Amino acid sequence: MAKGNEFSGRLEWRINVADGTSKTLVPESGIIQKSCRRLQGVVVGITLRIWSFLHKAWEIGVNEPKKFFHCLKVGMALSLVSLFYYMRPLYDGYGTNAMWAVMTVVVVFEYTVGATLCKCVNRAMATFLAGSLGIGVHWVANQCGEKFEPVVLEFSVFLLAAAATFFRFIPSVKARFDYGLLIFILTFSLVSVSGFRVDKLFEMAHQRLSTITIGVSFCIITSMLFCPVWAGQELYSLINRNLEKLADSLDGCVAEYFTDDGTKEDSSKNLQGYKCVLNSKATEESMANFARWEPAHGRFNFGHPWKQYLKIGSSMRNCAYCIETLNGCISSEIQAPEFLKKHFNDVCMRLSSHSSNVLKELGNTMKSMTKSSKTESSVREMNFTVQELQSALKSLPYQLALFTSPALEASNNGKDEAPTESSKVPLLEILPVTTVASLLIEIAARIEGIVEEVDELANQAEFKPASKKGSKKTQQSSTDDKD
Amino acid sequence: MAKGNEFSGRLEWRINVADGTSKTLVPESGIIQKSCRRLQGVVVGITLRIWSFLHKAWEIGVNEPKKFFHCLKVGMALSLVSLFYYMRPLYDGYGTNAMWAVMTVVVVFEYTVGATLCKCVNRAMATFLAGSLGIGVHWVANQCGEKFEPVVLEFSVFLLAAAATFFRFIPSVKARFDYGLLIFILTFSLVSVSGFRVDKLFEMAHQRLSTITIGVSFCIITSMLFCPVWAGQELYSLINRNLEKLADSLDGCVAEYFTDDGTKEDSSKNLQGYKCVLNSKATEESMANFARWEPAHGRFNFGHPWKQYLKIGSSMRNCAYCIETLNGCISSEIQAPEFLKKHFNDVCMRLSSHSSNVLKELGNTMKSMTKSSKTESSVREMNFTVQELQSALKSLPYQLALFTSPALEASNNGKDEAPTESSKVPLLEILPVTTVASLLIEIAARIEGIVEEVDELANQAEFKPASKKGSKKTQQSSTDDKD
Repeated sequence: MAKGNEFSGRLEWRINVADGTSKTLVPESGIIQKSCRRLQGVVVGITLRIWSFLHKAWEIGVNEPKKFFHCLKVGMALSLVSLFYYMRPLYDGYGTNAMWAVMTVVVVFEYTVGATLCKCVNRAMATFLAGSLGIGVHWVANQCGEKFEPVVLEFSVFLLAAAATFFRFIPSVKARFDYGLLIFILTFSLVSVSGFRVDKLFEMAHQRLSTITIGVSFCIITSMLFCPVWAGQELYSLINRNLEKLADSLDGCVAEYFTDDGTKEDSSKNLQGYKCVLNSKATEESMANFARWEPAHGRFNFGHPWKQYLKIGSSMRNCAYCIETLNGCISSEIQAPEFLKKHFNDVCMRLSSHSSNVLKELGNTMKSMTKSSKTESSVREMNFTVQELQSALKSLPYQLALFTSPALEASNNGKDEAPTESSKVPLLEILPVTTVASLLIEIAARIEGIVEEVDELANQAEFKPASKKGSKKTQQSSTDDKD
Repeated sequence: MAKGNEFSGRLEWRINVADGTSKTLVPESGIIQKSCRRLQGVVVGITLRIWSFLHKAWEIGVNEPKKFFHCLKVGMALSLVSLFYYMRPLYDGYGTNAMWAVMTVVVVFEYTVGATLCKCVNRAMATFLAGSLGIGVHWVANQCGEKFEPVVLEFSVFLLAAAATFFRFIPSVKARFDYGLLIFILTFSLVSVSGFRVDKLFEMAHQRLSTITIGVSFCIITSMLFCPVWAGQELYSLINRNLEKLADSLDGCVAEYFTDDGTKEDSSKNLQGYKCVLNSKATEESMANFARWEPAHGRFNFGHPWKQYLKIGSSMRNCAYCIETLNGCISSEIQAPEFLKKHFNDVCMRLSSHSSNVLKELGNTMKSMTKSSKTESSVREMNFTVQELQSALKSLPYQLALFTSPALEASNNGKDEAPTESSKVPLLEILPVTTVASLLIEIAARIEGIVEEVDELANQAEFKPASKKGSKKTQQSSTDDKD
């Protein structure tokens, strides 16, 4: 058998043949084979990269068909606009200015309706404003005589461009009018500069505005009529999804800590869900920003309180930070002794399941857009379990120290297998469990923060009150739960 | 005296005059005054908003003069390009195509050199690629006869626009070539559509490319020569600043918990520093992305491992999550009894100061770009203090339960005022302190994660090794610290 399959310097590779002798292995032809292999490696590497790239693209297409449709929509809008370009009568009217329609479609068409509308309004307003200002400045410059005309124009371009660029740094302006300011600078410099040559400024302005209007209307129609993707709806789904993920990873974390039955791998995906919550701030903010531009759609009115979703998101992140720390504690090396875990197992598992119930209930409230009376009872249950956990913590040192009075011992019902010999457990060993417990209590407190924000949303967005029937059902099921 | 200054429905407001009688107060003239006051309110409101807006703008200008200079640079670049537009010989050569130079400057000029370079390269490459492809498709369409020409062109526009839009959804492509793909769609549709009319495609392509080249070179020269803002340098400063903030807020949090001397307000600003770390992910990523396009500058080579900064940032965020939870625990309502706090005060304060020392030392390593031998000793000190804290935790239950052997009691040196009567402290009261302690231990572990990432950076970026002299000095000062 060959002892190795690579050739290196002074080493000799031998192969034992069936008849007992051994032959020396000699490389067939050095450089050519090496370079062949290297080439092969490069080709394989490139093929693999292309393959993985296509695979990723395919996954995006399959998992998010909306994105796939968006691409078709962009293609369609562009084809339509260029069709318009081929029609000779229109072309003769607008000449090369028709190019602006194509340009508008390419630049303005965004994934969500809100983003498209935001860009459309920004572009239209900025073009109009900058155009009129440009013509005004041009007129003033004209009055100053031929010598001063370029000076006035140059100075105005410098001043307005600098000022507009500066405004783009102010966060509140940037969030809404960034694109508008860019187009403002662009249009103003084009108008004031080209005006130096072309005297038909008004005609040009008129043509540009009308071609932009054509482009903008193509965009708006295509993005709103064919499989529209509403930023508001996306934000709403994101928050709902994140609520579920938070609930799942809380459950997963606590279950992983208290049950060691080797099912860790299955739950690891659920467990990491909170990371999505940690990283969704930027997406939430841009979605909320675009959602404000959208007209009423689906179940959302025009004045829907999108900002409140940001507050919900922020309180969810607050909770996710705690879950992150909890996750860190769970994977810590110091493990609590088994009997301690057993002592807390039941109450901690119940607390986590009640906490995640509250989160799920909030998800239901959001989904049905109906004030749920179940939430209140879930919160009450959660808080009740928090108190149980606190009293479990209270009772612990007596058990451990073994100088408990018989009365106290009796009150424990002999349920927990309290140790008789290993009683002098140092605090260091109790620490992991107590830390997990106190983090769970903190998480419950932070979940109440989410509840408050969702309640505020329910008030602002005027969610329907829960039906009597539903609330009765709820109370019944919650008492069932207790049993 | 008037009993009230508002008028409402049926109520009568009376004023007691000096002679003992009283007069009824009647509003002077209802509607006009009201509307006057309302108008006043609106005007004051608008003035206040404008004032606060200008104040914010002024603050940005004062705090970040770089941004102010950037605005001047944009103004200058635009004026220069439009100057070029006024020169008749050049204008005669390029005609209205000169507009593309202005457009390029407006669209491509970004705050950092890296972003500008990224956009320049993207724009140039995409224009070239899409232009050639457009001409090719145009030629193919020409061969298909007059009837099929629009069909072929329309179809190619649809297909390529859809494909390019799809690629923009793939994160790795989006990060680097988003703008390029946009320009690709734009140029391709303009070329293939306008080609239907104009037969001088090659001339147009040549003119567009050269005007874009002019615009791009203006941008690059202005952004690199006058007060350049390097994305790499910004990223580097951001990470350094965040290291400092993390150290400060760790110190602040622990100090606030253990010392109640009313200096809370002073430290609250420092305390919140970790929030910047939590929210800087998006900035870090875009900076690292742009930094890769930048040439060697200052102390950074072309191949500087910018990606490693992202890893450092991520490990810092990991640590910040823990500090966030710690902050939550500190402001929790359940407070530990004073004697317990005293028991942990010393060691916890030392651990936090050693931990923040490690962070500061890492900051020094980054700032001087020199491997510091001090870091190692700081980490050792931190770990030593972690062990001290652990043994403080270990010794606690014996002290509390009061059945410690005399030997153990003696070993505590009588330093802590261990209670004799209130010894049966329930675990619930110990919990806050122990949670703080275990979070501090977790934070120390996560700081070691940051140390590893900074070490990796030091290796990848080939930081200079510490000088012998410095290391001796360091060791001396560290022993001084211990004393």
